[in-house]
Amino acid sequence: MMLTIDKDYISLIEEGGIFSYSLARGNFILPPNGFSLWNQIRTFLNNSFSKLGIQEVYLPTFIPISSFNKEKNHLEGFSPEFFLVRGYKGSELILRPTSEVLFYEWFSKTLKTYRQLPMLYNQWCQVFRMEKNTKPFLRNTEFLWQEGHTLHHKEKEAIEFIKDIFEIYKEYVENILCISTIVGSKTQGEKFAGAIETYTVECLLPDRQCLQMATVHYFSNNFSKVFKVNFNDNNKLEFPYSTSWGSSTRSIGALVLSHSDNNGLIFPFQISPIQIAIIKHKKNLKIDNYTDLLVKSFIGKYRFKLYEQSSQASINIKNADKEGSALKIIIGNNEVENEELSVSLRINKNKIIVKKSDLFKFIKESELKIANFLKNKSLKNKEENTFFVNSYEKFLSLYNENKQGLFIVQFCNTLKCEIIFKKKFIPFSFRCIINKEINKDKSCMFCNESFSYSSIIARSY
Amino acid sequence: MMLTIDKDYISLIEEGGIFSYSLARGNFILPPNGFSLWNQIRTFLNNSFSKLGIQEVYLPTFIPISSFNKEKNHLEGFSPEFFLVRGYKGSELILRPTSEVLFYEWFSKTLKTYRQLPMLYNQWCQVFRMEKNTKPFLRNTEFLWQEGHTLHHKEKEAIEFIKDIFEIYKEYVENILCISTIVGSKTQGEKFAGAIETYTVECLLPDRQCLQMATVHYFSNNFSKVFKVNFNDNNKLEFPYSTSWGSSTRSIGALVLSHSDNNGLIFPFQISPIQIAIIKHKKNLKIDNYTDLLVKSFIGKYRFKLYEQSSQASINIKNADKEGSALKIIIGNNEVENEELSVSLRINKNKIIVKKSDLFKFIKESELKIANFLKNKSLKNKEENTFFVNSYEKFLSLYNENKQGLFIVQFCNTLKCEIIFKKKFIPFSFRCIINKEINKDKSCMFCNESFSYSSIIARSY
Repeated sequence: MMLTIDKDYISLIEEGGIFSYSLARGNFILPPNGFSLWNQIRTFLNNSFSKLGIQEVYLPTFIPISSFNKEKNHLEGFSPEFFLVRGYKGSELILRPTSEVLFYEWFSKTLKTYRQLPMLYNQWCQVFRMEKNTKPFLRNTEFLWQEGHTLHHKEKEAIEFIKDIFEIYKEYVENILCISTIVGSKTQGEKFAGAIETYTVECLLPDRQCLQMATVHYFSNNFSKVFKVNFNDNNKLEFPYSTSWGSSTRSIGALVLSHSDNNGLIFPFQISPIQIAIIKHKKNLKIDNYTDLLVKSFIGKYRFKLYEQSSQASINIKNADKEGSALKIIIGNNEVENEELSVSLRINKNKIIVKKSDLFKFIKESELKIANFLKNKSLKNKEENTFFVNSYEKFLSLYNENKQGLFIVQFCNTLKCEIIFKKKFIPFSFRCIINKEINKDKSCMFCNESFSYSSIIARSY
Repeated sequence: MMLTIDKDYISLIEEGGIFSYSLARGNFILPPNGFSLWNQIRTFLNNSFSKLGIQEVYLPTFIPISSFNKEKNHLEGFSPEFFLVRGYKGSELILRPTSEVLFYEWFSKTLKTYRQLPMLYNQWCQVFRMEKNTKPFLRNTEFLWQEGHTLHHKEKEAIEFIKDIFEIYKEYVENILCISTIVGSKTQGEKFAGAIETYTVECLLPDRQCLQMATVHYFSNNFSKVFKVNFNDNNKLEFPYSTSWGSSTRSIGALVLSHSDNNGLIFPFQISPIQIAIIKHKKNLKIDNYTDLLVKSFIGKYRFKLYEQSSQASINIKNADKEGSALKIIIGNNEVENEELSVSLRINKNKIIVKKSDLFKFIKESELKIANFLKNKSLKNKEENTFFVNSYEKFLSLYNENKQGLFIVQFCNTLKCEIIFKKKFIPFSFRCIINKEINKDKSCMFCNESFSYSSIIARSY
C-alpha cells in the first residue's frame, strides 16, 4: 500500500489512538496508545544507553537569548525557528530548539579535572521549533526527543563512543522499529552547524522519500573552546572532546508510514501498545470464564486489551486492527469446548487454531515472524527503489522522468558543488555519504572534480 | 539541626549533586543524582497509579490564550503567573502553568459515550509560573510534576477514586519520603479555583513552616460543563464528574530540608540516588580484588558508587556523606583478611563490622532502620511543634510571642472570616481542615460563628 499523506495518514493515527491534535498549531497529544509506544521506544534506548554508562539528567526549557548568541554558527542554524518568551522584568528567553547551549554552560561551571571525565549525559524532553508546515510526528512545533551530550578526555575515546552510539541507533531502527536503514555521514552542506562530522541513520518510506531517524554529531573540542569548557592537566588548560546525538517522536511517523495498511496501524510485537487483542465471538458464561482465565494468564506478561465496546465481534476486530494489535485471539463456543483459541496475526488474514497449552510458544514464535515480515517488507521497499547511477547523464534522465528513490552517485563532498546541486535539482538533497573511503579514480559526477565518495541522493521529509 | 535557607540549603543540594543553577532565573538543572532521585519517586508513583488503571499520556506545552480565557475562575487563579509566547504569525500562546484547559478541550473532542468512562490519565511534564521569589525545588519558574486528570460516569465513582489517590499520596510522603504528614481538606480561601473540594498532604519542616506536598481536587461536573465535555445517556446529555491531582519536584526540597544534617544530604535507602558507597581504605592488589568482587555482587541489586576521586579515604567518606549515600562500606587490609566489611549508616556515626556472608541481610535490615529513624525524627518534629489552641486569646498570645508551628484551632470555614484572619495574622494561613465533621457545640474562635471545624494554622512556603 502507498499511503497518501495527509488524509489517510491522519485518520490512521487518530483512529489508531496514537495521536490527537491539541489547541496550538503544530502540537500533538499522545493518547495512552501513543504514549505507550513512545515509552517502549524510550525503554529500549534507556537500557542501551545505560549499558554504556550514560546517565539521565534534566535541563530546563529557557535559554536567555544572550547566551544563545555566543555560538554564532549554532545560532545561524536555528534562529529562524525560535519561539521567543517574555521573561521576568522583560528579559528575553527562547524555548530550547536543542540544548547544546544549556549543557555547555553547565559543563563550563562543573568541569574541573579530567577525573570527572567522561561525562555521559542524556535527557528526554520536548523541543520547540517554529515550523511553517507541520505534519504530526514528522514536523511539529513541539516534539519529544532524547538528546545526549558527552565530554571525553581524549579524542580517541570520543570517536570510540560515537561508534557505540551509532550502533545503538542502527539496532534501534533495524530491529526494534523493524525498518531497513540507510547509514552514513552527512555531507558538508547537511551536517549539524558546528560539527566536525554528523552520522545519520535514515530510512526510505513507501512514498520513496527519506526520513532522518537519528543523528550523531562529533564536535572535536570546538564547542568546548567556544563555551570555555576546560580542565587543568599538568598545568596545561585542556579542552574535552564532545559529542551529541538524538532521536525523536519522528520515529512514530516512520513506523506508521512503513508498516500500516488500509485497515489501520501495524507495529512490531515488541513495541506494540496493544500486543494482544482478546475478542469474544459471543457472550455467555462459558466464554466469559474461559476469557477471564486467559486474561489472568496474560497479566504482567503482555500488553493486552479486551475489545468489547461493541456487541458485534466483527466491529471489535476492526477496532483492534485500527489500533494495531499485533495478535487477535477470538473466543467462541468451539474454542471453549476444544480447549483452543483462534488466533490471527495483524500482518496477514490467516486464522490459526492454537491449542491452549501451546499458546505462549505460539506467541513467542509470532513475535519473530512479525518482525521478520516487517523487516523484509521494508528492505524490499528500499532495494526496489535503490538505483546505482553511473553518470551525470543517467542522473539527469532519471530526474527528468521524475523517478523517485535512492540514487547512489559519486560526489566530491565540497560545499560549492553541493549548493549548485541543491538549487538545480529541487527537491533532492544529499542524504549521506555511504562510504567515507575516497575514490581517487572516480571523479565527481556533478563538478568533475577528480575524486569522489559514494553518496546517496533522495527526496526527504 | 535547623537549616538556614538559603546559603546552607543551596550548598547542600549543589555539593550533594542533586541541583545546579541553569541560565534563566528560577530554573534548575537535575544532575545525575537529582534525576535519579526524581526517577525513584516517579517509579513509585507510576506503579501505584497503574494499579488503579491510570494510563500515561502527554499533552503539549502551549495553550492559546483565547482557550485559557474560557474558564474565568481558573484564569483568575493563574493569570499573574503567565509566561507569554509569541507564536506563528503573531498568535499569543501561554506556557502551561497547569494543563486543565488542554485536557478538557481534548476530552470534549474525544468523549462520546459512557462506555469510554472512566478516563484515568496522568502525565509527567514541566510547568511554568512567573514567580517573583524563587528557591530551588520549593518555588521555581519551571518545575517538574505529575498531573492526573480523570472523568467518571457517576459522582460516587469520582469520590471513591479521590480516596484512592489520596491514600497513594499519603503512603508516598509517609513511607517513601519518610516524612510525617498533615492531611485534610483545604478551606474556602485556599482550595483550587473551580474545585468543589481540595484535599492536601502537607508536612512540617524543621524550620516549622508547612510545605504542600500533593493535592487532590474534586470538580464535580463543573469543569465538564464549562468545557462542554459530555456524553449521551438514554437521549440525555450527561456531564462526567472529574478530578485532578498532582505532586512535584517540591518533594525534593522537602526531603532535603527534613532529613539532611551538617555533613550533607540524607535519604531513605529506597530512593537514595546512591544507596551504597564503597571506599577503599588503602590501595593494594588484595583490596582491589576484594572490592571488585563486592562490586560485582551489587550489580543490578543496588545503586552504588565506588568513591575514589581522592587518594585519601577520609575525603572520599566526606564526599559520600555530602551525596547522601545511605550506607558506607569501607575496605582495608583487616576487612580483607577477616572476610568482613566495615559498614556505617549515613544516619549515625557508628562503625559496624559485618561478616561478608551477612552483608545482604545487614543491608536489608539497615533499609528498615534508616526509614524508621527518619520517620521518627520527622514525627517528633511535628509533634513537638503542634499546639492545641482552645481560645482566641491563647492564639493571640502565641502569635504575639512569635511562636511557630502547627496551631490546631476551631474555625467556621467561611470565606469572610478567613480573609479577615489572613490580613490580621500575616504570614499565617489555614493549611487544612483536619476533620470535616462539623462541631455544632464549638463556635469559631475568630468570628464566634456557632459552628466550627478542627483546622490547622501555620506559616507556609
